[in-house]
Amino acid sequence: MQAIGVDLGGTKIEVGIVDHQGQLLKSSRLATESAQGPQKIQAKLLKAIKEIIQSNKEPIAGIGVGIAGQVDGQTGVVHFAPNLPDWYEIPLQTTLFEEIKLPVKVMNDVRAITMGEWLFGAGQKASDLVCVFVGTGIGGGVVSGGRLLTGGSNSFAEVGHMAIDVNGPTCGCGNRGCWEAIAGGGGIAKQAQLLAKQDSFASKKLLELCEGKILNISAKTVVEAYHLKDPLAISLMEAVQNALIIGCANLVNLYNPTHFIIGGGVIDGAPGLIEGIKQGVKEKALSAPCRSLSILPARLGKQVGVVGAAAAIINELAN
Amino acid sequence: MQAIGVDLGGTKIEVGIVDHQGQLLKSSRLATESAQGPQKIQAKLLKAIKEIIQSNKEPIAGIGVGIAGQVDGQTGVVHFAPNLPDWYEIPLQTTLFEEIKLPVKVMNDVRAITMGEWLFGAGQKASDLVCVFVGTGIGGGVVSGGRLLTGGSNSFAEVGHMAIDVNGPTCGCGNRGCWEAIAGGGGIAKQAQLLAKQDSFASKKLLELCEGKILNISAKTVVEAYHLKDPLAISLMEAVQNALIIGCANLVNLYNPTHFIIGGGVIDGAPGLIEGIKQGVKEKALSAPCRSLSILPARLGKQVGVVGAAAAIINELAN
Repeated sequence: MQAIGVDLGGTKIEVGIVDHQGQLLKSSRLATESAQGPQKIQAKLLKAIKEIIQSNKEPIAGIGVGIAGQVDGQTGVVHFAPNLPDWYEIPLQTTLFEEIKLPVKVMNDVRAITMGEWLFGAGQKASDLVCVFVGTGIGGGVVSGGRLLTGGSNSFAEVGHMAIDVNGPTCGCGNRGCWEAIAGGGGIAKQAQLLAKQDSFASKKLLELCEGKILNISAKTVVEAYHLKDPLAISLMEAVQNALIIGCANLVNLYNPTHFIIGGGVIDGAPGLIEGIKQGVKEKALSAPCRSLSILPARLGKQVGVVGAAAAIINELAN
Repeated sequence: MQAIGVDLGGTKIEVGIVDHQGQLLKSSRLATESAQGPQKIQAKLLKAIKEIIQSNKEPIAGIGVGIAGQVDGQTGVVHFAPNLPDWYEIPLQTTLFEEIKLPVKVMNDVRAITMGEWLFGAGQKASDLVCVFVGTGIGGGVVSGGRLLTGGSNSFAEVGHMAIDVNGPTCGCGNRGCWEAIAGGGGIAKQAQLLAKQDSFASKKLLELCEGKILNISAKTVVEAYHLKDPLAISLMEAVQNALIIGCANLVNLYNPTHFIIGGGVIDGAPGLIEGIKQGVKEKALSAPCRSLSILPARLGKQVGVVGAAAAIINELAN
């Protein structure tokens, strides 16, 4: 079986053909140009899908689409996508189905990533799995008892908004101390900007990397400055590692997985974090859920969005 | 169908007969005398079960046992029970089965409570349910997609050890700021004792209730002092309410239930907490998982342990 996976993000759209073993056979990439709005972006996506289908020898069984946003689990309507202006209540799944006449499944991107790591990545054959992606925010997906969980309104595992520090930094959601406000890429940048304002000496190297412009500080420059031994970046990355340990230990206690998979841009930028998380979680989580726990780096790399979205439709068609 | 439910606690053992509609038809209660150790307690429990079976006209379909402790999901071996000295690796399920020759299911007590509220209490017909019991500690159970979740090593939803305040009070597990260290009965008592030492003026009424003995302060006396407008008790109970809101909002974001059931001794002692939790969770949790959320008081009352344990075996035999 071959299926199409689509990773629809705020800056780029990736479309790929994936086989039943999770191999990405071919792919194309285009700029989202998100300001163009939902109609033009959908037209562009449709064109790319039709082209890749025509260029392929084998028939395509279906199309999976992962999108950073809230998606209705039944209808595939995109309620809201924070990185795509004007995407409110967009019936993407129906539109694609009506144009292409193939089975279509539209879902949240981290749900798709979880499906990809479960079927084809670090979580193969696991019945109880947690997948955490630390990007700009922190997203999660959970498999329990052999099923990907969706929850009562398709919002299971909003792990980024688990508060771990009631007095912590304010999150975009309005609360204080959400996990992603401390350890997500956006939160790291925001905290570093605040700290650099207060202490330009400790953040000298970080500021050099940003040509002296505090607003240029990103999670990426913080990680670079950390490797250059910038004191502010070191102390911030220690706090990030500690928050990742506490958050992951919470999820071990709450979801009792055998496979805990962690990936995403922040982890890719500082892969040393994983060793610290492994050790810290074993110390902090309860012994019962640690008994059969492995903490593993995500395995599908940059392809995970496309492969995961394809995995979701492959899984649906196979069951 | 009629089944036996057993609530095996550190101070008392309750044995009851429950019908297929969750009605408790009769019950007996005896002191655990936990210092007697596992052999004598098991013998006592066996005797009580045999007596109630003999006194009953209808045949008994099976026996469910809830126990505060870690239980193996397959074998029903009690790995460890903090309130029962010397209970390590006790094959209670096998022992009961061999003596009584009826189907037996031994499980964690909060798992049993969740089953009871799901089948016969506030969560009837729910596919996505969270049940939180705030007693000495805080326990939880989760139904998702119509199944009670157990996790990879039968430790799903150890909600009491979700850290919500990295700088909070130290928990029995060694970590800081676990939910139950702040809002569980044991944590409330410990915090009140510490605070009363520091400020005997603010805790005047609380200390009067305890005849001046700080070690007599319990969650119960804190709640009593709160109703008497003791300033220390008021400020502590406000912190408890805030912690309950944050923890429940976390669980709404993490488990996305439609029914969130809350009960236990601390809630029973201060039922006004539930209104505050309802309002606070709607403010703090994300809008998507709140869309179809009801927060409900537990409905089965003091019988919940026995009815829940019976519900678990009834459910198993019916499926």
